[in-house]
Amino acid sequence: MIEKNSVGKKNVIKIFKNKESENLSDNVAVEEPLEIRITHGKKGNLKTTNLSVTMRTPGNDAELATGFLYSEGIINDFEDIKSINHIDTLTNFNNILQVVLSENINFDIEKTEKHFYTSSSCGVCGKTSINSIKQLKKSGSISNNFIKINKELIFSLPQKLLSNQSVFENTGGLHASALFDINSNIVTIKEDVGRHNALDKLIGFSLKNKLLPLSKYILLLSGRASFELIQKAALADIKIVASIGAPSSLAIQTAEEFGITLIGFLNIQKFNIYTFPNRIV
Amino acid sequence: MIEKNSVGKKNVIKIFKNKESENLSDNVAVEEPLEIRITHGKKGNLKTTNLSVTMRTPGNDAELATGFLYSEGIINDFEDIKSINHIDTLTNFNNILQVVLSENINFDIEKTEKHFYTSSSCGVCGKTSINSIKQLKKSGSISNNFIKINKELIFSLPQKLLSNQSVFENTGGLHASALFDINSNIVTIKEDVGRHNALDKLIGFSLKNKLLPLSKYILLLSGRASFELIQKAALADIKIVASIGAPSSLAIQTAEEFGITLIGFLNIQKFNIYTFPNRIV
Repeated sequence: MIEKNSVGKKNVIKIFKNKESENLSDNVAVEEPLEIRITHGKKGNLKTTNLSVTMRTPGNDAELATGFLYSEGIINDFEDIKSINHIDTLTNFNNILQVVLSENINFDIEKTEKHFYTSSSCGVCGKTSINSIKQLKKSGSISNNFIKINKELIFSLPQKLLSNQSVFENTGGLHASALFDINSNIVTIKEDVGRHNALDKLIGFSLKNKLLPLSKYILLLSGRASFELIQKAALADIKIVASIGAPSSLAIQTAEEFGITLIGFLNIQKFNIYTFPNRIV
Repeated sequence: MIEKNSVGKKNVIKIFKNKESENLSDNVAVEEPLEIRITHGKKGNLKTTNLSVTMRTPGNDAELATGFLYSEGIINDFEDIKSINHIDTLTNFNNILQVVLSENINFDIEKTEKHFYTSSSCGVCGKTSINSIKQLKKSGSISNNFIKINKELIFSLPQKLLSNQSVFENTGGLHASALFDINSNIVTIKEDVGRHNALDKLIGFSLKNKLLPLSKYILLLSGRASFELIQKAALADIKIVASIGAPSSLAIQTAEEFGITLIGFLNIQKFNIYTFPNRIV
C-alpha cells in the first residue's frame, strides 16, 4: 500500500522580536480527509457503505481503519478483514480506503449509519444518546492483572517517545501514541494530527501483529488523556496508560471503571497517579 | 442557566524522581457529554431531534450550542434561536440542552441526521463524503479587508491568554480560544477539553453579543490550528488567526482559500506567518 507523505512543505515567514524576519520553506504535518468504506455481506450479495470520514495524517491508513473498526466493535480479529485497499478517483488520491469484511461479520448498516461516524479526535460521534456512549467491553469482565512496574521505568518513557517521534520532530505538529513492553522497549509509535487516530493506528498495528490483549504493555500518550482515549485503551485491555498532559475527570472515572492505572503530567522529574497506584512500585 | 462545575477534585498520588511521594486532592478539568436537542417547526407541528452528543467541559453550554449551530449552518443569527434550556432527567443533570429554533428556520432533519454529528474536537463528523467537507461560506464572497496589526501586538497575546485562562490555571488540562480586538484588548476567552468546543463557545458568545462578522478581531488558539478550526473561523469572518501550536497543511490551505492571515508557533520571542503576511507590520 503506497501512502501519501506525512510531512509537507509550506512557505513561511519567521518573525522575531529582536531581529530581521526570515523567509523559508518549512515542514508541516499533513492533514487530509480519509473516507472509510466498508464492503460487507455474502458472496453475490455484497454491499458497500460509507462508514466515516476522518481528518488524518496520511501513513498507516490500513492500521487506522483496523483500529477504528475494532474500537467501534465492528471487528474482533484481524481475520475479520478480508482486504484493505486505497481507491483512487480523479480528485482523491489515496484518501478513500475500502475495507472488505469477511463473510461471517454481521455488519448492521442500520445501526452503524447513525452510530459510527468518526473524526480526527472523536470517539463518541453520532451516538446521539448520552446513555449509549459508554460502550460495553467485549470481554465483559475486567481482568485485574497486577503487573508491577518500577517508577524509574515510567520516568524513562518521555525521552524514548521524543526520540522516536519522527514526524513530530520535523513539524512540531502531531499527537503520538506509543506502546512499550514491561521492560520499556518501544513496540510501536504512531503519529497523527488527531490523537484518536494515533491510538487507532496503534491498536490496528497490535491487532494485525496478534498482540491483543495488551494487558502486558504500557500505553504512552503525548498529550492529554480524554474519555475516548481511555475507552479505546480499555477495549484493547491496556492496564497502564501514561499521558504527558492532564487527564479529564471522565478519563479518570473510566480508568477506575476498567481497572486501568492512569498516570498524568508525566515528565522526567515527576508524575501523578490517579487510579490503581499499586501497579507502580 | 445554572451550569455544572468546570473544575473537579480527584485524589492523586504525586511521584517524584528524587523525593517521597505525596497524596493529595487535585483539581482536574471536568469532561462530560452534552446532548443537543433541536425543537423545530411551526406551532402545532413541533418536532424534537437529537442533533449531537459532544464531550465538553461544562460552562457556557448555551454559547457552545449557539456556536455549533452557526458553524453547521443551521442558524445565521442569535434571533434564530427562541430558547435554550437544560433538561434534567434522573440520570443526567445539566447534560441535555434543548434548543428551540424560531419558526422561520427550515431545519432539514433528513439532511442533518446524517450530516451534523459532533464531538469534542470534530467538525467533519458524519459528512460521509470527502467532497462535502468543505462547507461553503454563507456570505459567498471573501471580504479581503486588510487591517494592519503591529507585530509587537501579536507578541503580547500569549501572556494575555495565559493570565486569563482560569480553568487551565487550575487544572493544566484545557484548550482555549480567545478573541482580541485590534488594540489587543481581550474580548472573551472560552475554555474546553475539546478545542472545537472552545471555539464554538467563542463564536456563540460573539453571535449573542452581535459582534459578527469578526473581521476586525484576532483569534488566538491555545493549541494547534487544524482544518476544522480554520473552517469555523472562516465562517465567522475572522481574518487573523494566531495559534500557539503548529498548523496542519490543510489549515494553511484553508486559510489561503478564505483570505485568513494564519500565524503559528506563537511565543513571546517569535512566530511564523503562513498566509497573507501583509496584515502584519
